[in-house]
Amino acid sequence: MSAKKIPYKMYLSEEEMPSTWLNLKAFMPRSHAPFLDPATGKPCSAAQLEQVFCRECVEQELNDTDKEIEIPQGIRSFYTNFRPSPLVRAYFLEKALDTPAEIYYKFEGNNTSGSHKLNSAIAQAYYAKQQGLKSVTTETGAGQWGTALAMACAFYGLDLHVFMVKTSYEQKPYRMEVMRTYGASVTPSPSVTTSAGRKILAEFPGTGGSLGCAIAEAVETAVNTPDCRYVLGSVLDHVLLHQTVIGLESKIALDKYGVRPDIVIGCVGGGSNYGGLIAPYMAEKLQGKNDIDFVGVEPASCPSMSRGRYAYDFCDSAKITPLAKMYTLGCAFMPSPDHAGGLRYHGMSPIISKLYHDGYMRVEAVRQTEVFAAAERFAKCEGILPAPESSHAIKVALDEAIKCRESGQKKVILFGLTGTGYFDLAAYKSFNDGNMKDYVPTQSDLDRGFASLPSL
Amino acid sequence: MSAKKIPYKMYLSEEEMPSTWLNLKAFMPRSHAPFLDPATGKPCSAAQLEQVFCRECVEQELNDTDKEIEIPQGIRSFYTNFRPSPLVRAYFLEKALDTPAEIYYKFEGNNTSGSHKLNSAIAQAYYAKQQGLKSVTTETGAGQWGTALAMACAFYGLDLHVFMVKTSYEQKPYRMEVMRTYGASVTPSPSVTTSAGRKILAEFPGTGGSLGCAIAEAVETAVNTPDCRYVLGSVLDHVLLHQTVIGLESKIALDKYGVRPDIVIGCVGGGSNYGGLIAPYMAEKLQGKNDIDFVGVEPASCPSMSRGRYAYDFCDSAKITPLAKMYTLGCAFMPSPDHAGGLRYHGMSPIISKLYHDGYMRVEAVRQTEVFAAAERFAKCEGILPAPESSHAIKVALDEAIKCRESGQKKVILFGLTGTGYFDLAAYKSFNDGNMKDYVPTQSDLDRGFASLPSL
Repeated sequence: MSAKKIPYKMYLSEEEMPSTWLNLKAFMPRSHAPFLDPATGKPCSAAQLEQVFCRECVEQELNDTDKEIEIPQGIRSFYTNFRPSPLVRAYFLEKALDTPAEIYYKFEGNNTSGSHKLNSAIAQAYYAKQQGLKSVTTETGAGQWGTALAMACAFYGLDLHVFMVKTSYEQKPYRMEVMRTYGASVTPSPSVTTSAGRKILAEFPGTGGSLGCAIAEAVETAVNTPDCRYVLGSVLDHVLLHQTVIGLESKIALDKYGVRPDIVIGCVGGGSNYGGLIAPYMAEKLQGKNDIDFVGVEPASCPSMSRGRYAYDFCDSAKITPLAKMYTLGCAFMPSPDHAGGLRYHGMSPIISKLYHDGYMRVEAVRQTEVFAAAERFAKCEGILPAPESSHAIKVALDEAIKCRESGQKKVILFGLTGTGYFDLAAYKSFNDGNMKDYVPTQSDLDRGFASLPSL
Repeated sequence: MSAKKIPYKMYLSEEEMPSTWLNLKAFMPRSHAPFLDPATGKPCSAAQLEQVFCRECVEQELNDTDKEIEIPQGIRSFYTNFRPSPLVRAYFLEKALDTPAEIYYKFEGNNTSGSHKLNSAIAQAYYAKQQGLKSVTTETGAGQWGTALAMACAFYGLDLHVFMVKTSYEQKPYRMEVMRTYGASVTPSPSVTTSAGRKILAEFPGTGGSLGCAIAEAVETAVNTPDCRYVLGSVLDHVLLHQTVIGLESKIALDKYGVRPDIVIGCVGGGSNYGGLIAPYMAEKLQGKNDIDFVGVEPASCPSMSRGRYAYDFCDSAKITPLAKMYTLGCAFMPSPDHAGGLRYHGMSPIISKLYHDGYMRVEAVRQTEVFAAAERFAKCEGILPAPESSHAIKVALDEAIKCRESGQKKVILFGLTGTGYFDLAAYKSFNDGNMKDYVPTQSDLDRGFASLPSL
């Protein structure tokens, strides 16, 4: 495959780091369907979106022509604070599996947010600052996104107000403490500070909240605060755009050693890390230049693609966002209390949805007990304790490597290791204690979700 | 100072990584005083030490002639799993401080143990395996060492039994869970599994335990188990030896850019990380080749060097270990409930003690509230959330950089950033809430400790 000896870890030099993001939409034969205003059923205008989001992000959201978009120097500078991330050749894992496959993973967890989320948090905070805004709002569930945004806002000198799903706020006080250390103000949601929150509290006293409600509170606060906008950590096209540094760095490193992946695997929740990882290779595939096997991995407990519908739906469960055409279980779908909080989302990135719908990638749904077993095996060989979300990709990478052992094929496997599991040890404990259960929605669970799809 | 543009992060290639450790003792005009057997008052023989420690570690412990000691390939191979660690130019911090100083830090936290401890854990587990042992025992307080050793034992296929101070076991269940995930068996100490533990429990029912008691239980278990030895994470010469990869990598990286430090700063608890960081530069100073200002930083609450005595003392509070000549507060000194658990030790590495005693380095004692203030300032500029221990070095590095701003001096500051603070968020919460107190022992607190010094 490759002539030069491949090191355990490939780090690009700062000169080799990408100076542009890759706009996957510009390579797609047809862009995905536009966002619709739920009130009129018509496509949202840029002006409408700019009431909620930063101007530059809206421009990126609607840009489906420029193949490359420059990364401003002010963002590239902070990227050097935690990038390049290592691309690791999993020699130890290959040996433990006794597989002829070559396994590589791009590790995004070596920063205080513990995940890839920082790639977009920095970009969005930078654009907010450039626009002259004073503050931004967001919601967070598991807390990775909120932490990443708190770091970015501290760096650029922006105020940040985070609405954190109340159950997470109570169960993960240390996640909240990291955000607070970086100067963010964190409110458990639902709260009495917004009309959306007050309405939910009146209707469901004592509720633990939901991501949908936290989104509603964050958007309402942004719209009602001068010089403030709302920012989101996944799903949207501009977030995927920022995450393409993951794939671009991976490809630059692999190209240096003449390595071409046969399979590219990643977990999919909102879809942004996987969209970022596959971008340069998928752009080639869209041009007929490769036939890579792209595999998105989702939890069997929240199977947005493998068992969802490709339809227009709200991005949140409070039904206040524009409608997106995507794979969805319906915004009222209630995911089980699965441990991979970052993958517990009813919908999917419109870009990933369209690629899947058009047959450019496939999807596997895996159960959490097999995910944690793969995580522990990986941790013992490779040292890194992975996040439950990331471990979905590990599970399928292991399966593919074992298939190679059985068939004798020397495939090159690349997967995305999005983050570390340091804040997920309650889940590891549940697994170590033998108390972890697998949840798979029944058809009637799914039907209840589908019943919430808006009729257009 | 330097010709080439210095990147934010310097990563060595795998070929550039050191293949030998540096034996600082071989450069010292006279070695430190030998370990004494408390029963006879005579120096411990290798045979005596080998009943407790791995053979190769004892050999290294007693070696004061070889300047370089080869790092076996089996260790170098696992080092590539998490090394080289980055040497970071703190451009963001320099800008925030508006200082003409150049600030560099060597960051050892990018591994699942979260600290430099893994450097020696791997070496000791490797030698135990080579010796044909089946298992090792150790104690852990805060948990970084236990985690590192669990990772190393999982990798080399050794059983590990950790005695974890009971209060930590109860306060940090997730630290324990990481060890368990890596296959270690963890027992809260004191326990009924050893006579040392049973004795303490009979005398002090309901006690939360201590490091001294956990050491006693680990040593007793090792001695009474076939094919088992006890391993220790700091203080001893062979641990400092393994930690010299930190300093060697730092110097190789800085030399490439023609950078020479004027000040080298690190936190000191048992002294192993700081001994490792300074090794190559201190070896030069011992030969009269530089006049670098070496500064060890200890907590004002446990001022082993700045207010301790240079005397023979037990390494543990249960008085079962050999006697070491070192700076000590007396093995009965009760450190306050300070948050930097890793620095809460009554003694100090014999090598560091001798260097301090002979005037080759100086010591600063700092209070924890100023340490956490420095930590937060650092975190906001540089992204990394530092461990409380590491933040002691940050505090003094900031002070030195601010002095440079005032004097206009362009000093080059190098400090060791030993780990991350992800498992220390209760301490950050206490600081953020304004509840953190500073503890400084009174003279009578110190006198009580000194009264426990053995008379020889």
